[in-house]
Amino acid sequence: MLFLNHLVMDAYTPEQSKTILTDMVLPGETNPLNNLFGGELLARMDRAASIAARRHSRRIVVTASVNHVAFTRAVPLGSVVTVEAKVSRAFKTSMEVFIDVWIEDRESGEKTKANEAIYTFVAVDETGCPISIPEVIPETNLEKERFDAALRRKQLSLLLAGKIKPNEATELKALFE
Amino acid sequence: MLFLNHLVMDAYTPEQSKTILTDMVLPGETNPLNNLFGGELLARMDRAASIAARRHSRRIVVTASVNHVAFTRAVPLGSVVTVEAKVSRAFKTSMEVFIDVWIEDRESGEKTKANEAIYTFVAVDETGCPISIPEVIPETNLEKERFDAALRRKQLSLLLAGKIKPNEATELKALFE
Amino acid sequence: MLFLNHLVMDAYTPEQSKTILTDMVLPGETNPLNNLFGGELLARMDRAASIAARRHSRRIVVTASVNHVAFTRAVPLGSVVTVEAKVSRAFKTSMEVFIDVWIEDRESGEKTKANEAIYTFVAVDETGCPISIPEVIPETNLEKERFDAALRRKQLSLLLAGKIKPNEATELKALFE
Amino acid sequence: MLFLNHLVMDAYTPEQSKTILTDMVLPGETNPLNNLFGGELLARMDRAASIAARRHSRRIVVTASVNHVAFTRAVPLGSVVTVEAKVSRAFKTSMEVFIDVWIEDRESGEKTKANEAIYTFVAVDETGCPISIPEVIPETNLEKERFDAALRRKQLSLLLAGKIKPNEATELKALFE
Amino acid sequence: MLFLNHLVMDAYTPEQSKTILTDMVLPGETNPLNNLFGGELLARMDRAASIAARRHSRRIVVTASVNHVAFTRAVPLGSVVTVEAKVSRAFKTSMEVFIDVWIEDRESGEKTKANEAIYTFVAVDETGCPISIPEVIPETNLEKERFDAALRRKQLSLLLAGKIKPNEATELKALFE
Amino acid sequence: MLFLNHLVMDAYTPEQSKTILTDMVLPGETNPLNNLFGGELLARMDRAASIAARRHSRRIVVTASVNHVAFTRAVPLGSVVTVEAKVSRAFKTSMEVFIDVWIEDRESGEKTKANEAIYTFVAVDETGCPISIPEVIPETNLEKERFDAALRRKQLSLLLAGKIKPNEATELKALFE
Repeated sequence: MLFLNHLVMDAYTPEQSKTILTDMVLPGETNPLNNLFGGELLARMDRAASIAARRHSRRIVVTASVNHVAFTRAVPLGSVVTVEAKVSRAFKTSMEVFIDVWIEDRESGEKTKANEAIYTFVAVDETGCPISIPEVIPETNLEKERFDAALRRKQLSLLLAGKIKPNEATELKALFE
Repeated sequence: MLFLNHLVMDAYTPEQSKTILTDMVLPGETNPLNNLFGGELLARMDRAASIAARRHSRRIVVTASVNHVAFTRAVPLGSVVTVEAKVSRAFKTSMEVFIDVWIEDRESGEKTKANEAIYTFVAVDETGCPISIPEVIPETNLEKERFDAALRRKQLSLLLAGKIKPNEATELKALFE
Repeated sequence: MLFLNHLVMDAYTPEQSKTILTDMVLPGETNPLNNLFGGELLARMDRAASIAARRHSRRIVVTASVNHVAFTRAVPLGSVVTVEAKVSRAFKTSMEVFIDVWIEDRESGEKTKANEAIYTFVAVDETGCPISIPEVIPETNLEKERFDAALRRKQLSLLLAGKIKPNEATELKALFE
Repeated sequence: MLFLNHLVMDAYTPEQSKTILTDMVLPGETNPLNNLFGGELLARMDRAASIAARRHSRRIVVTASVNHVAFTRAVPLGSVVTVEAKVSRAFKTSMEVFIDVWIEDRESGEKTKANEAIYTFVAVDETGCPISIPEVIPETNLEKERFDAALRRKQLSLLLAGKIKPNEATELKALFE
Repeated sequence: MLFLNHLVMDAYTPEQSKTILTDMVLPGETNPLNNLFGGELLARMDRAASIAARRHSRRIVVTASVNHVAFTRAVPLGSVVTVEAKVSRAFKTSMEVFIDVWIEDRESGEKTKANEAIYTFVAVDETGCPISIPEVIPETNLEKERFDAALRRKQLSLLLAGKIKPNEATELKALFE
Repeated sequence: MLFLNHLVMDAYTPEQSKTILTDMVLPGETNPLNNLFGGELLARMDRAASIAARRHSRRIVVTASVNHVAFTRAVPLGSVVTVEAKVSRAFKTSMEVFIDVWIEDRESGEKTKANEAIYTFVAVDETGCPISIPEVIPETNLEKERFDAALRRKQLSLLLAGKIKPNEATELKALFE
């Protein structure tokens, strides 16, 4: 893989696209329970993820889709929220970006996972036409796991969009056997 | 169905929760191609959908999850965007909200579908504890179709979250047989 | 009327320009009594009304004037506010847009009228020059009433601006006789 | 008048409530012709006017109504806009605030009147109940003229709201005789 | 001084560039103690100061530096904040702008100094190149004092930036002798 | 130093407070040359720096002062801006936070230093009273250099505020000898 990278000059690790956006939850972004609106978190994740996609592809990028996102943990007013985004796998003209969200306790300093999400971006030229993008070389175990799972998610996405048939989704079908 | 509604006083049609948010795309919300940021659209859809969920449940609601959302069509600066949200199915304490997004051509007045998305909300009391919510009574063919599909989506969601096993996702499994 | 419409292809009903903007009142938009700022409501009404005017004229539109607006009812933080705008009458290059504002009780679902307002818009070409616009065909009784009153309001507006003399404001003068 | 002021300590000149809000027009506040949205100007005027009303009454104030506002002059992106608000007359629990808006040419430094508007505010206590407010003592000719006209506007406002009959609007009726 | 002014047509008093920005502190701009964020005040001061610099130079201006700013007094939610900016001295292509910030007590109407700050701006042409700017003619004692101190501040700034040597900072060195 | 740390459990390295805020420059934040407003950058730096100060002190923090900030490099619309803040030295109840700002070229991925700034924060309890904070243990050469310079800056700050006399500013005085 390193050899390939050396030849084509066109592959990056997830670490190279890593983007961190740490910011507070302000009063204008909270719901009646004084927690961050889901929609605000979706927008912050989109901004961080699009920067990661831009760093990987070195191109203008546009959001293509948002994978299933579960809001498992409320994020209260005044929290410090860290959104960390890394490109997890590249396909021909699209990239999957994995996003982890943490909040931290002010007194203990302890960080808690609040969310994770997966967005897909497409790299485009100045006229908006999709163009091919560098490969991803996963390094850590977690990065490798996410790299592998990305293919199953892509098949699921194509299947749900009606672009492939169930029996073509080989990776996915295996789950049910 | 109407009989049940009459007895329990606790079932509404999707039409009764319908929420429309029509607004323009302003310069502060656009990417380098002068189109609406994906994240901004996600936030607008969340606001409209949460109002629909609130109208159906008559409770405080919080975003529980966002289903797969595909951004199939760019929304240019200056567009008039209509976000329409309706509760498509209610489970015990959660509701699925189906969101349709249109943009319209200024000169012809013609509307084009730009997006659709599915969000899930949970109804909670003042302390944030989930509480049970009214049923949904679909009326039109499209509403009935979405009502039926909601169960498959719920199984997929539980499956992806590891809360049920593949062979328990009966509705979903059938797709691959 | 339908005949005329058929010939000139250039008349719409108020229903055809109807624009609905339903959104929440967020903490950043409230005054020291925790109610929506008057100025924020004026801005929301302007956005909805300008979309209605654009839908009717199919042109770029600019706000020409705001009629007397009374804030009869406070709109508390967390409210769901529905702004509904319809073109009520068209003059040569200007349109009157009638705006109704409702808030709703979360528990009962009951809607209460919070405000009404009248804005006037001018349709312009790309260089900012006013251009003529389609007629309005009122359908309901309320629409007809508002259509008729629009002429009196126009005379009042011209009178206050010193553009006509009191005795030219025939519709208006009748009020005092 | 000065004597009364001395005794009750409860009368201020328009100059004493004068409030100036000078700010730029930013890209997020402009319409397709690159001019400031009418609604944004309405909101800025409301903020300046409410501070003037607060300075005069020394109480919490809420917007009661907006008089007829004509947008006679476009305000382009990048403009420096000066909003100047002064309380022009006080009634029992309400105040009329007169607002003048100027834009200035960067190179010549010349100021041009872009708009004027009249807002009415009510002074309230912490529970939202209206309370009486100090008188206004106009000083300049323009202030005296606006002070006098305020009574006619109040009658017109009451008349339009159906709270007085045309023949009770003595000041206004005189216009048509 | 007036004579010089008359000849070159190119000198203004601080009063001529005076810019006032009075506005409220809204909930979206406050920290966990319900006071205005330091960063928000820095941004408001920058907007007011850049308008003063533009008024003096009649050119596009860009922020060059911010002098030491001390936040000596908290600015609570709901406060009326007045930012007043005046150009205090002009150098070749840069201007020093002095900013005074007051808050006022609603009931007594008393104003208290909350902050002061000094920003430096550069005047540029349409391509971003610095261009020479008019002189400043201080009038009041305070303006003269600030005018004189501006030179010491400029030396300190150049010294801290390593652009001059300590013994070249003649005005500043005198402080330590 | 490590020994002390071990005993009092109350000292952190700059790395432990490091806060990264990477975000784009949007159209609503730019001046007439299409570059980020100085004031917007000041506000972003304040948010990142206050999180670093909170992470170090584990307390509510408020901005106490901003040191001299030079805007040496314009930040164009669409840039990706990385603000990195670390506590550089702690005094009794105040902390100095050093902020580095980079922008990156989309195509080459190269990062350029755009700015640096120094903010001071005070840690307070729930009532706003200052409380003592942990020490800083610098690790890298740059951190040690900044740690040492912090004392000179503090003396300069006290000197400018008139709280110490020139001959008490021993560290600073040495510069001029």
